[in-house]
Amino acid sequence: MGRLARNVTIVGAGVSKFGAFPKKSSRDLFVDAFQEALASVDHGLAPNNLEALFLGNFTSDTFEQQSHLGPLIADWIGVPSIPATRIENACASSGAAFRQGVMAIASGMHDLVLIGGVEKMTDLTVENATDSLAMAADSTFEVQQAAFTFPGVFAIIASAYMDRYGITPEHLMRVAIKNHQNGSLNPKAQFNRTIHDLMEARTKRLTERGQSVPEWGDELGFLQDLAGNPLVAWPLRLFDCSPISDGASCLILASEDVAHTLTDTPISVAASAHSSAPPLADREDLTSIPSTKQAAQLAYSMAGISPDAISLSEVHDCFTIAEVIATEDLGYFPAGEGALAVAEGLTNRDGEKPINTSGGLKAKGHPVGATGGAQLTELWTQLRGEAGSRQVTAKDLQYGLSQNLGGSGNSCVVTILKRGLL
Amino acid sequence: MGRLARNVTIVGAGVSKFGAFPKKSSRDLFVDAFQEALASVDHGLAPNNLEALFLGNFTSDTFEQQSHLGPLIADWIGVPSIPATRIENACASSGAAFRQGVMAIASGMHDLVLIGGVEKMTDLTVENATDSLAMAADSTFEVQQAAFTFPGVFAIIASAYMDRYGITPEHLMRVAIKNHQNGSLNPKAQFNRTIHDLMEARTKRLTERGQSVPEWGDELGFLQDLAGNPLVAWPLRLFDCSPISDGASCLILASEDVAHTLTDTPISVAASAHSSAPPLADREDLTSIPSTKQAAQLAYSMAGISPDAISLSEVHDCFTIAEVIATEDLGYFPAGEGALAVAEGLTNRDGEKPINTSGGLKAKGHPVGATGGAQLTELWTQLRGEAGSRQVTAKDLQYGLSQNLGGSGNSCVVTILKRGLL
Repeated sequence: MGRLARNVTIVGAGVSKFGAFPKKSSRDLFVDAFQEALASVDHGLAPNNLEALFLGNFTSDTFEQQSHLGPLIADWIGVPSIPATRIENACASSGAAFRQGVMAIASGMHDLVLIGGVEKMTDLTVENATDSLAMAADSTFEVQQAAFTFPGVFAIIASAYMDRYGITPEHLMRVAIKNHQNGSLNPKAQFNRTIHDLMEARTKRLTERGQSVPEWGDELGFLQDLAGNPLVAWPLRLFDCSPISDGASCLILASEDVAHTLTDTPISVAASAHSSAPPLADREDLTSIPSTKQAAQLAYSMAGISPDAISLSEVHDCFTIAEVIATEDLGYFPAGEGALAVAEGLTNRDGEKPINTSGGLKAKGHPVGATGGAQLTELWTQLRGEAGSRQVTAKDLQYGLSQNLGGSGNSCVVTILKRGLL
Repeated sequence: MGRLARNVTIVGAGVSKFGAFPKKSSRDLFVDAFQEALASVDHGLAPNNLEALFLGNFTSDTFEQQSHLGPLIADWIGVPSIPATRIENACASSGAAFRQGVMAIASGMHDLVLIGGVEKMTDLTVENATDSLAMAADSTFEVQQAAFTFPGVFAIIASAYMDRYGITPEHLMRVAIKNHQNGSLNPKAQFNRTIHDLMEARTKRLTERGQSVPEWGDELGFLQDLAGNPLVAWPLRLFDCSPISDGASCLILASEDVAHTLTDTPISVAASAHSSAPPLADREDLTSIPSTKQAAQLAYSMAGISPDAISLSEVHDCFTIAEVIATEDLGYFPAGEGALAVAEGLTNRDGEKPINTSGGLKAKGHPVGATGGAQLTELWTQLRGEAGSRQVTAKDLQYGLSQNLGGSGNSCVVTILKRGLL
């Protein structure tokens, strides 16, 4: 178990712009990501060489009243007869779709596979979107009985963590500041602005309206003020939460036999691991996500490396607390010290352990079914040295890791990419 | 492409009872199928040896307001940490899930994998269930613009076929008579009664009420009378349509290395193929399903056999016309002669080419996400000689084929099983 029969390489990747696009359907969004991925293949690729599509999507059923999205999207991008399957693991759907693509190639079934993800969320009201997202939890016992939505779920996780380790909401705010800083350098990000920019824009708007401007001081002061950063579910505030987004992601995977004809700068799949966890009530501890821990252990074992070897990571910061816990569960920092590491700058783009150079879900946006693929696209871009103004230059990049969570960690997919061939 | 790195074997299989079960959720239904599959493993199997779950489900999102069913079901059957992914290809979801399981083992990632499918459809009204099912078509162009539901889609396919080949609705009725005959021998079938039984029950009810009983004569007379068999969408009548059902299916797949420790009567996966087709408006011909033709060709090539080698088949008779067309697209009969073959008895259980010995979707029931797995469970049971009163005994069974359709053939999965090892 866990030893692939064939190596798998990524030869192209792309994402659509993330945001709210009233005139674009899932299909249109995916075409944007696909075209970028296709254009990114070093030596070019004709779409009709693609052999299969694995598409991550959480619930176009409720967002767009459209299931069976696989063949529709395959048709829309011009390959109407290839096998096209929708993969659903809530917000980890495209992380899981990537894993299906890896297995499809490793199995010998296919040599050239498209994976991706898409979600079109902004057609619904915020209330209805929140209801749809809640279906990633246990609808019977967590939603109907316990009245949880996801901000509530991560609020109790945050309060358990704060209680055990003595950290404060300000520690979490620093995650948002860092990720918006990174997002400000990512032209595809839904919020490609720093918190400082957002504060200044807010000040300008209040001034224009003749309203009084609170004395926020710096970014942290802005986030500490309820007028700047209203409460969502204590202790989480607006800027602790990732947004509702439209967007798509797409990667092209190839067997090593085929990859060398397509690219001079291959990025290899060093590990692909996936674990599950039971609903919250059946867990012993809320300050850690058991599926992340288990998937990470499997992934390190598969890649034959330790957490120290990871050069940069994209982790699932659906809420700021989720990033902090992820960096502990992945073995980067001891339990209880993830929040301190952020304050010390260790997770900055030029820090020891860069986290979410893309801006993360927080600033880049979180079109749920597209997120896992977008994380992998960022790693691919960084490992190739093509991330432009947000390129990590402080260190030699060898291994990139993504952690993609579904629900409250009911699913977790951990992927490790490596520069070059295995 | 298409040569698996490792062989894959089925070592256990089971289905829940199909029907309407107001007190059972998806999870309960899947447990029923899982327990039967587990009990069917010759030398026994402890669930904690299972390494992954691939679960076919079309839209629990709209049927039960529950997405992210993979980890919930894994938890419910007692393996809460294994990777658990929902696979969606509309009504071909568990056929596609089976294929993911095959690739997961062939890739070397896993040695022992659970695949299955489930759908809990009867909590909705018939109108709302029909709306949910319509999401398997193109919601924008086929449903909203053209006002199609699936009975309508297959009605135009049937009328095109009748027009081209000169067959009549009576030819289609013979498909229903045959499948109910088979279903009457399947204790898991939603309708395990012959059409003759149903006619007699109807006669009895009318007599008890003091109402006049039409002179139906035989089964065909009953089906030809609108009082016995009302119109749904011309030319399709009630008994041309599969029912709305609750149910689950489950199979246990193993690498050959592991299989020999679990079973003395292995059934091997000789081929697993999957193709797509564009929406109806983009097809040249409505009297054939292009994805079935293409997947069948791939499957025969992978297995190294011709259609003649297939001993028995489970095909996707969501509507009677779909069975007729499938038997042509699979290469069993020339185009236009599938309906005649039914009338000649060639597709009977004791005929040359037994089709849907389980009762098919028509009589066994069609819990959409479970159907592909249920087809494969029937083949597995027949190939092992364990199908009881419906066992095919007229011939030596070597190869079984299943054809599992999604939407109007936007997806088609064709699987070929072989008795013994490859």
